[in-house]
Amino acid sequence: MGMTMTQKILAAAAGLPEVKAGQLIEANLDLVLGNDITAPVAIHEMDKFTADGVFHKDKIALVMDHFVPNKDIKSAQHCKCVREFACKHEISNYFDVGEMGIEHALLPEKGLTVAGDVIIGADSHTCTYGALGAFSTGVGSTDMAAGMATGKAWFKVPSAIKFNLTGKLSKWVSGKDVILHIIGMIGVDGALYKSMEFTGDGISSLSMDDRFTIANMAIEAGGKNGIFPVDEKAVSYMKEHSDREFKIYEADEDAVYDEEYTIDLSALKSTVAFPHLPENTKTIDEVGDIAIQQAVIGSCTNGRLEDLRTAAEVLKGKKVKKGVRCIVIPATQRIYLEAMEEGLLRTFIEAGAIVSTPTCGPCLGGYMGILAEGERCVSTTNRNFVGRMGHVDSEIYLASPAVAAASAVTGRISAPEE
Amino acid sequence: MGMTMTQKILAAAAGLPEVKAGQLIEANLDLVLGNDITAPVAIHEMDKFTADGVFHKDKIALVMDHFVPNKDIKSAQHCKCVREFACKHEISNYFDVGEMGIEHALLPEKGLTVAGDVIIGADSHTCTYGALGAFSTGVGSTDMAAGMATGKAWFKVPSAIKFNLTGKLSKWVSGKDVILHIIGMIGVDGALYKSMEFTGDGISSLSMDDRFTIANMAIEAGGKNGIFPVDEKAVSYMKEHSDREFKIYEADEDAVYDEEYTIDLSALKSTVAFPHLPENTKTIDEVGDIAIQQAVIGSCTNGRLEDLRTAAEVLKGKKVKKGVRCIVIPATQRIYLEAMEEGLLRTFIEAGAIVSTPTCGPCLGGYMGILAEGERCVSTTNRNFVGRMGHVDSEIYLASPAVAAASAVTGRISAPEE
Repeated sequence: MGMTMTQKILAAAAGLPEVKAGQLIEANLDLVLGNDITAPVAIHEMDKFTADGVFHKDKIALVMDHFVPNKDIKSAQHCKCVREFACKHEISNYFDVGEMGIEHALLPEKGLTVAGDVIIGADSHTCTYGALGAFSTGVGSTDMAAGMATGKAWFKVPSAIKFNLTGKLSKWVSGKDVILHIIGMIGVDGALYKSMEFTGDGISSLSMDDRFTIANMAIEAGGKNGIFPVDEKAVSYMKEHSDREFKIYEADEDAVYDEEYTIDLSALKSTVAFPHLPENTKTIDEVGDIAIQQAVIGSCTNGRLEDLRTAAEVLKGKKVKKGVRCIVIPATQRIYLEAMEEGLLRTFIEAGAIVSTPTCGPCLGGYMGILAEGERCVSTTNRNFVGRMGHVDSEIYLASPAVAAASAVTGRISAPEE
Repeated sequence: MGMTMTQKILAAAAGLPEVKAGQLIEANLDLVLGNDITAPVAIHEMDKFTADGVFHKDKIALVMDHFVPNKDIKSAQHCKCVREFACKHEISNYFDVGEMGIEHALLPEKGLTVAGDVIIGADSHTCTYGALGAFSTGVGSTDMAAGMATGKAWFKVPSAIKFNLTGKLSKWVSGKDVILHIIGMIGVDGALYKSMEFTGDGISSLSMDDRFTIANMAIEAGGKNGIFPVDEKAVSYMKEHSDREFKIYEADEDAVYDEEYTIDLSALKSTVAFPHLPENTKTIDEVGDIAIQQAVIGSCTNGRLEDLRTAAEVLKGKKVKKGVRCIVIPATQRIYLEAMEEGLLRTFIEAGAIVSTPTCGPCLGGYMGILAEGERCVSTTNRNFVGRMGHVDSEIYLASPAVAAASAVTGRISAPEE
């Protein structure tokens, strides 16, 4: 019986000729990731069971991004703990204020994630690197601790759902709309512990940024990982950003999938997930009149250069509506600089938006735009759970950068065509 | 007996031919200011004693800047309260995310403060507008409430200290060094409830940004206000930024001063205030070896364009030292945009600093760079009290933008000449 793309990567990492869905394996890890929230817990755990140090100083990435630059004394203490750990163990991939970025945008940009890798990260959106044909998945801080110490992790080999993408997205429709459409279709547990394997001739038209966005939100359908085949675009991305060798795994022709869906990209519309679950989707024409007080354009899901280009295209020469706070957060320092060079940041400021330094910020209720009681925010982030961005009686509407920018101008959730 | 510059403004605002130091007067107000910390308290107080509304919808300024974009639910609720008040009373000068800036940089830029004004603000650094020849002073939230309701405030007329400035500052020495030198000389209570009146032929060489910095920190010597004569530079600043009429008051030749100091600007060196009081000053050559983990360039004291130009001049082509977080915070959206146009922001990012959206941020321990235990920060802000920027065992060294930038490069408090 053939293996899926994910299964082939896991078999290789476990040193096995074959693996089957449900099988327990121990795989070698290419990268172990933690951030300023999860790494302190992992460090504390690791200290309990070993004094031997880390398995490989170049295969651990510690990214200070959630509450950084430090939002309070507690987060400052957490960063200090990680900083000292990184220093003690000479971790080469420690990223702090100045070299900063949101982990899932930063690591591919720094060339630390490539096709064929097995990556765990103590952050649920670690699945992002599937866009490059890597197996990557979120774990708890204890697994991160074990991973840092041993360079290995146990996995139950996942079965898979195949998403066959055909056609091409229309103008203003993006990767965010693809994944919101899928989550709306299969639900937030629709891919529970399964691989979401994307395939089909529609993929070639998707930009790398679109793919990162889609893979990033696999977890919002419960997926163990999301993964794309490695085509020329992916290869060229890796060659541009990394000097690491990569290995391309393709699914066997007779690989078995639990389910298969075919999605015609050309039929998709801008899609919005209503409170309080990413599966509560409506297409933009079904949204109705939803006034908003804030628009957030950023996060590991949609803070990349292409996202900012789209938002700037919508905002160019327009003004953010009075009473709406529009917060733009480039995901990394490099993206910030590129967006500045291209004049995008100028467009945002002239439109009356503000530009934050790279940070996760408001996405998880950290800072940089927390909501008051009764406020509504349209956001390019990934979760709209109750109270995630502030007050328990606030609301988050997940959408693409195009929709978020258009909504900032009109003051209600709007199509970019308006 | 003649009157000081301050006394002449107060006499006019009280409708009296003459006032004397110590006299209690009721003065008409040209502007009443509050921010996201103090305005909610003032609004609550005002609601207790009047239902009549505000004295003048154009003479109140409400600036959301301290914990904005909202750093947490509490700050979000506070902003919401002020936003609703501004809406209800049609306050024309309400500033929120997008039109934002730090109050004391924003109001002169928006043309809301001019020579001859009497201004109260529920923020201690309201004394900043003295740079334009206005009488402006910080008050509590209750006084702000009374001011918003009646347009009047009671003052005890202050006596004054005269600072006669001569000569011209050397390269890399700035207004910040002037005021730190003065505070070091007279102490943090050296001007308690007194006017600090600056005069002398040295003033003409001081830029407006230097003067704003000097007046801003009058409160750190205990001053009721700091005030500059209105010369061509001040007039040209006001004409550029405001269409309001202004009135120039000059001190009488026989005005009486409690004390007089003469300061030769050309003799001043870069000056640093050591923990934990602004009066603990040393000149840069006396500083010794002080390693730092963070540098902050911003605040109502030193977040203006000229400050950023100086910092960029130091950082151009250099790199922030590994292990140092360098946080640059333009004080207003306009300054942010101008700094971007001039290429300053590019210089910061390329040097490995980060650029925040305008906010008070870390200055008062809000967010955007809070310190952990044992950490040291060199900062262009105005107060270095115990725990002000974070942990009770952290330290703040107050300095100019030139010194802060130079220190970011070397990792210890350094002269820009290094």
